[in-house]
Amino acid sequence: MTSSTPHHWVITLVCADQPGIVHAVSGAIVQANGNISESQQFSSDDTGRFFMRLQVQSPATRPELEAALAPVIDRYQAMSIIDVVGRPLRTLVLASSAGHCVNDLLFRQRGGQIPVEIPLVLSNHGTLRDLVGFYGVPFESLPITDAASKANFEARVLEAVDELDIELVVLARYMQILSPELCARLSGRAINIHHSFLPGFKGANPYRQAHARGVKLIGATAHFVTGDLDEGPIIEQNVVRVDHSRTPAELISIGQDEESRTLTQAVKWFAENRVLLDGARTIIFK
Amino acid sequence: MTSSTPHHWVITLVCADQPGIVHAVSGAIVQANGNISESQQFSSDDTGRFFMRLQVQSPATRPELEAALAPVIDRYQAMSIIDVVGRPLRTLVLASSAGHCVNDLLFRQRGGQIPVEIPLVLSNHGTLRDLVGFYGVPFESLPITDAASKANFEARVLEAVDELDIELVVLARYMQILSPELCARLSGRAINIHHSFLPGFKGANPYRQAHARGVKLIGATAHFVTGDLDEGPIIEQNVVRVDHSRTPAELISIGQDEESRTLTQAVKWFAENRVLLDGARTIIFK
Amino acid sequence: MTSSTPHHWVITLVCADQPGIVHAVSGAIVQANGNISESQQFSSDDTGRFFMRLQVQSPATRPELEAALAPVIDRYQAMSIIDVVGRPLRTLVLASSAGHCVNDLLFRQRGGQIPVEIPLVLSNHGTLRDLVGFYGVPFESLPITDAASKANFEARVLEAVDELDIELVVLARYMQILSPELCARLSGRAINIHHSFLPGFKGANPYRQAHARGVKLIGATAHFVTGDLDEGPIIEQNVVRVDHSRTPAELISIGQDEESRTLTQAVKWFAENRVLLDGARTIIFK
Amino acid sequence: MTSSTPHHWVITLVCADQPGIVHAVSGAIVQANGNISESQQFSSDDTGRFFMRLQVQSPATRPELEAALAPVIDRYQAMSIIDVVGRPLRTLVLASSAGHCVNDLLFRQRGGQIPVEIPLVLSNHGTLRDLVGFYGVPFESLPITDAASKANFEARVLEAVDELDIELVVLARYMQILSPELCARLSGRAINIHHSFLPGFKGANPYRQAHARGVKLIGATAHFVTGDLDEGPIIEQNVVRVDHSRTPAELISIGQDEESRTLTQAVKWFAENRVLLDGARTIIFK
Repeated sequence: MTSSTPHHWVITLVCADQPGIVHAVSGAIVQANGNISESQQFSSDDTGRFFMRLQVQSPATRPELEAALAPVIDRYQAMSIIDVVGRPLRTLVLASSAGHCVNDLLFRQRGGQIPVEIPLVLSNHGTLRDLVGFYGVPFESLPITDAASKANFEARVLEAVDELDIELVVLARYMQILSPELCARLSGRAINIHHSFLPGFKGANPYRQAHARGVKLIGATAHFVTGDLDEGPIIEQNVVRVDHSRTPAELISIGQDEESRTLTQAVKWFAENRVLLDGARTIIFK
Repeated sequence: MTSSTPHHWVITLVCADQPGIVHAVSGAIVQANGNISESQQFSSDDTGRFFMRLQVQSPATRPELEAALAPVIDRYQAMSIIDVVGRPLRTLVLASSAGHCVNDLLFRQRGGQIPVEIPLVLSNHGTLRDLVGFYGVPFESLPITDAASKANFEARVLEAVDELDIELVVLARYMQILSPELCARLSGRAINIHHSFLPGFKGANPYRQAHARGVKLIGATAHFVTGDLDEGPIIEQNVVRVDHSRTPAELISIGQDEESRTLTQAVKWFAENRVLLDGARTIIFK
Repeated sequence: MTSSTPHHWVITLVCADQPGIVHAVSGAIVQANGNISESQQFSSDDTGRFFMRLQVQSPATRPELEAALAPVIDRYQAMSIIDVVGRPLRTLVLASSAGHCVNDLLFRQRGGQIPVEIPLVLSNHGTLRDLVGFYGVPFESLPITDAASKANFEARVLEAVDELDIELVVLARYMQILSPELCARLSGRAINIHHSFLPGFKGANPYRQAHARGVKLIGATAHFVTGDLDEGPIIEQNVVRVDHSRTPAELISIGQDEESRTLTQAVKWFAENRVLLDGARTIIFK
Repeated sequence: MTSSTPHHWVITLVCADQPGIVHAVSGAIVQANGNISESQQFSSDDTGRFFMRLQVQSPATRPELEAALAPVIDRYQAMSIIDVVGRPLRTLVLASSAGHCVNDLLFRQRGGQIPVEIPLVLSNHGTLRDLVGFYGVPFESLPITDAASKANFEARVLEAVDELDIELVVLARYMQILSPELCARLSGRAINIHHSFLPGFKGANPYRQAHARGVKLIGATAHFVTGDLDEGPIIEQNVVRVDHSRTPAELISIGQDEESRTLTQAVKWFAENRVLLDGARTIIFK
């Protein structure tokens, strides 16, 4: 009952760590006539959880593969995802007026470098309409001026998530703080990007603070959105070297480059099912 | 018949790629009451070979573990290593007069950062005697002035390899070209370090050439020794940024730092059984 | 006779090294009521040349500034450029079908991050017409299929350089080898980008060679075009870490990112008069 | 009255920014028959201060050079240092029991890579006696167990600073908090090293916190000691990439490498008069 051409599957599995899991999973793969082309696993000493990601070439259909894995998932009480390698993830992008992260995502999406499809960019400003339109992606802007318009914007986010079968929400320099309710609703499927410094700076205008303190490295952190906006589990970080001659404006420009590449990298890994949560931190199977 | 305290084993396995290997290996681990704490695998599209490295906690003795794995190794015609995690690798260091790589290796070995024991540093100069002695490591120098003294030096290398049960030979800025015979004898168990530039420079005084060409990055490459001295499979590479103001002497100093840390990293990975050969290239299971 | 608002000037000066130059130049700046806001200098031990770059705020007009500097330039037989900081450099972009470098240049040019204006993108393919058009930049394609059409393309390059007052020609993954005549005509004002590896690989399909050899770093080098196409003075280099799991296709994708950012950086520095030639190498006043 | 062999001088100068400074300074150099071999300057928009560092080859004696510069220093109310390039800076090292930073400093000092001489390593533990002794450097340990013994230790620091003509105090993983009085006494001439993370972590066991949060980069910051121990002006920072598989112990080991190289770099720049203070930040003339 298997199809004639083998498919390329990605399987993730998370459960309590114990002996025999790999043997059980690999047995299911054998049963589905699969060959493991990529495999990574990790046992967390922190949480006692076991994490596994496989890429498998197999002629099995999805129901056949699910049937082969079902006893294993059941036995180990595992959370598991079965997906096709390269399937584009349905992604909603939230933006404000800064275009660097949006442009990087759209350019690379079009070039086939990140497996996402973007049915909508939603912004609280109209600035990016032309840029987004060039890539043939629908664009909506809904101004946020007060509590009511913000609630309206967030309602549109949730509506779009439902209507458009959204699997990932990317905050591509969306400069509004999400409500706790929206954070909760998007838990584990929303990624934010923000600048990062050594040391960290709290409060307004961090680039100016970084300049005043004379930091030698500036960078960016991509992380899951949680109620504590900039404190969610970290997915990726990058830094670049700067020196005393940089003005605050130049630091911002340099920081934007880091933001773009860090966010795009995080989205790519998430879309490839390479990002798993282990309590407050992420397991990244690169 | 198992011991009361579980041991921490490392297992590597290389064979022709085919379905079922992971299942078979993990079955043997289950049989030995083992729990897999770290696992990496790779299927090479280039050579059709399958590579696997496991760390396993198991109360089994070595004979028990070998017995469990023997049918799998036999069935898949695999090359396999079974070792105890953290066992110090018997390492012979060859040096000339430059001390930066030797110092880095000895300091980190003493600090427990790299699992090697060094029963001998052998040099064609006496320069490093005090440095090596400080770390309590035996030191011999045998001058090389002509073909006969070079043959004598190489004979001493092979003798030491036998006498001292050497598993790895590290050329820590040993500035003599090894004879083809010695390269062949040490194949797969000798690591060399050399400077690296973009582009590469052939011939004498590469740092001066790099300076003349105005390269912006200089680095180092650690690789296995083969008959073609600087062309063996690459284990690790690093670079650092330089600019036009650097003199050739400064480039050398900067390059030496890269050489030290690159060589030490390569030795560490090798000693941890993380370096496997796939034709002309290495698989590194970090 | 000075204007009421001070201008921001950039001045470069190259001459034989000798005592007193800085004093003479700074005297001319004082005479022009200028204040030096940025200053860099370098004395080359290789060539005995002295290099200087100044940014000066002064209410002087261009003729006044030239008059103040003329005696110094004359006395030291110096080559000198006087320009306005931030003036967009007239830049011709040559491309083929790959869009990554062109997109990066156009996006950043539009965002004001690099001081260039691009009156034309000229390609031997039509692939990038829409991308270039989106940024409102004229695009021409002239196919190259044989010696005659190649000569025709190069004639159009020279014609465009004249007609459009081009000051810089950027080869943004233009995949044709320039004729020696064109290299000579564009000497010192054409920048090329190419991939870089440790070690370097000659011949076709270098990414496949890099993969086969298992390189751990891949990168890009931006350099001036000379008759020896990939061997001109280096302006900027970057590398990124890769491992054995990368396919040749992935190495190409990673390499393209490095190409984009390295080329854009080189163009930015050149447009800011920060790149000076010292024989076969560059002085970069960042 | 000048000496027959030219000397290599380093001159730093800090004053309020205004036109004509460079001309005045370079005039004094001409008067002293000097040739400027290296020159850097910076005008701080933050504080309105002007910073300059010169390297000058001149046959003048120190009194002659001082006489030539005196009118300039007087006119611009400048702070200035005149020193001989490469003169070893008298450096006191404070340590506890960790040896990585001390070893790196001593090894490079002996190799001539950093221009310091170290007449004493003072520690609150005896652990490093042999290591320090190997390099022929005097070592004292004074245990700190309570307020009185801590006051005693700090009194010895100040005594050593006086007796040994100390110009720089390096806290090479000295794990005690300096008293406010000692911080004040050593202001601008004491350098500390500490780990750095994105984001920063307050409180005990930061590596464990970094592990729990899953940071992807860890690093180190070298900074001037101020009353707020880890908040002084930053001299140098480095980071290195880590992933989820690193244990807290491994993070510590990786972090120590960054600490060593970052501290050594900061000491080198300081000893070369390349570090100038601009309010809460540093100007680094690399």
